[in-house]
Amino acid sequence: MTEPSRRGLIAGAAAFGATLPLTGALSTFSPDSAQAAVQPMGQQVPSIYRYKVGSIELTAVNDGVRTFPLAENFVKNAKPDEINAALEAGFMPKGQITAQFNPLLLNTGGKLVLIDTGNGPQAGTATVGRLNANLGWAGVKPADVDIVIISHFHGDHINGLRTDDGVLAFPNAEILVPAPEWAFWMDEGEMSRAPEGMKPAFANVRRVFKDLDSRVRRYEWDKEIAPGITTVAAPGHTPGHTAYVVASGKDKLFVQSDVTNTPVLFVPHPDWQVQYDMDGAKAAETRRKVYDMLAAERLQLTGYHYPFPATGFIAKDGSGYRFVPAMWNPAL
Amino acid sequence: MTEPSRRGLIAGAAAFGATLPLTGALSTFSPDSAQAAVQPMGQQVPSIYRYKVGSIELTAVNDGVRTFPLAENFVKNAKPDEINAALEAGFMPKGQITAQFNPLLLNTGGKLVLIDTGNGPQAGTATVGRLNANLGWAGVKPADVDIVIISHFHGDHINGLRTDDGVLAFPNAEILVPAPEWAFWMDEGEMSRAPEGMKPAFANVRRVFKDLDSRVRRYEWDKEIAPGITTVAAPGHTPGHTAYVVASGKDKLFVQSDVTNTPVLFVPHPDWQVQYDMDGAKAAETRRKVYDMLAAERLQLTGYHYPFPATGFIAKDGSGYRFVPAMWNPAL
Repeated sequence: MTEPSRRGLIAGAAAFGATLPLTGALSTFSPDSAQAAVQPMGQQVPSIYRYKVGSIELTAVNDGVRTFPLAENFVKNAKPDEINAALEAGFMPKGQITAQFNPLLLNTGGKLVLIDTGNGPQAGTATVGRLNANLGWAGVKPADVDIVIISHFHGDHINGLRTDDGVLAFPNAEILVPAPEWAFWMDEGEMSRAPEGMKPAFANVRRVFKDLDSRVRRYEWDKEIAPGITTVAAPGHTPGHTAYVVASGKDKLFVQSDVTNTPVLFVPHPDWQVQYDMDGAKAAETRRKVYDMLAAERLQLTGYHYPFPATGFIAKDGSGYRFVPAMWNPAL
Repeated sequence: MTEPSRRGLIAGAAAFGATLPLTGALSTFSPDSAQAAVQPMGQQVPSIYRYKVGSIELTAVNDGVRTFPLAENFVKNAKPDEINAALEAGFMPKGQITAQFNPLLLNTGGKLVLIDTGNGPQAGTATVGRLNANLGWAGVKPADVDIVIISHFHGDHINGLRTDDGVLAFPNAEILVPAPEWAFWMDEGEMSRAPEGMKPAFANVRRVFKDLDSRVRRYEWDKEIAPGITTVAAPGHTPGHTAYVVASGKDKLFVQSDVTNTPVLFVPHPDWQVQYDMDGAKAAETRRKVYDMLAAERLQLTGYHYPFPATGFIAKDGSGYRFVPAMWNPAL
């Protein structure tokens, strides 16, 4: 991304800038004359998208994207050549992984609910940590959020609970977390027995949830924990990893959380285990079970690491599955 | 779509309203208190998306979407059961067709170029005719457009050349049209020999291009007609139907225009002929030739009737092809 020009910033901001309200930026809006060449905008539109499940209005609110070199151990049980072949079949560059992060906002009529909170505060040039800016573009202030639901305790899902001052990013929200996830990460024995590479994750969980015991509600599986939102056991990726069914009227949506990581690899190859799957075999078993159900029921899915707007359908395809994106609806 | 609430209109408008500048709407922006339940927004975000081909900045600017019952003759050479099977495979409802319309804006650095102009002025409740509102959200005024390129003379591509007052919608733009298309539709003999069902299309072409002879530049195939934009012969859909290659540096994009109609049907079944293909056999031949080339070269495509953001790749798949959407890039 190059530095946007002043006009790019203003005209860009007029449609898609950083925060609400925009009166300041807009009062300086001054169209170029028709004679001058119009400069490129140099910045993307905000990545937010609305859709409906019955009377529930959902908004995919992107937190950003990360691209990093393909590490030898990124997939525990596939070789770089196999991974590169899958990337090529998906028309993605070889030798690198692009991961997106898509928290989900739900307006249930009575409650404004956010599922997962993104990567949290970042340095200025980061390509993630965009959740709050994009919520602003969706017309939502952090103080509006009534309930935050956390699917599991990896940093890219929980770090957005705190601002860069360390205070609560959603000051009026009840925080709902999976009971088995809380039990695992808060257990002193688990922490002391964890391999060295896992210690920072334990420390991060304790930083984020410090002094929040009384504020956090721990939820069980197979329960409706907010209007229309029912928890589904999806362990393996982490011990308490949770998916959801959103239901309203006769409509349903499956919120898969991290049942797969980036779909270009793990939808056609569901037995592949990403390095972040803490119990790889169980994660793969959960993945097969969930995806067989999605394919059989033709149930619409949204996935946290799916490319924005992160929603579509799963079909069986050979020994794996195929993702069919839902058609973008320009009219809601 | 239900009537949006006042708050929905204001907060929606703050992010994604109808026209620029927004100062009027925004000066009345008044956030709800945290206690009140936040109302659903009730309207979609603007359907615009930016991407780059070398140094050229492209913007997919959606003109809307139409859904209509599947007519017996929608595909000339396929039965309703076969069409419904293709819709089902694409997770689309059976018995109806959903068509999108995606003009393409290109900023070549020196010139602002628009390829095709959408369905034009509509009554208030129409779900098409959104081009100018979405151009506004992209930071572009009609007077900014330097060049309008027309791919062919069907109404959903040319009607946006005129406002509802009948004046030119892009008052400063040179208008570039395919020479063989102009020759066909302006020919008195062709009009008099045309079947009755085609007469309104001839009349519409003459309405849109009335008194524009001296303003319209007629282009040939295999020529660079604007910076980085080269015409490609794609006859069959209409006699002068034209596609384009956009090239900058080592990047390339194929702009297919109507080489296929809605991809859920014609990508897996390229020999199917939509009722709008004027020479169905030639259109199918062009489709095979273009899609074989796209698959062999792994060349990125954009298609006017593809679902927004209307860009991705073509792979061979059985006796037809498969569309792989390009990953949405949140960071440009």
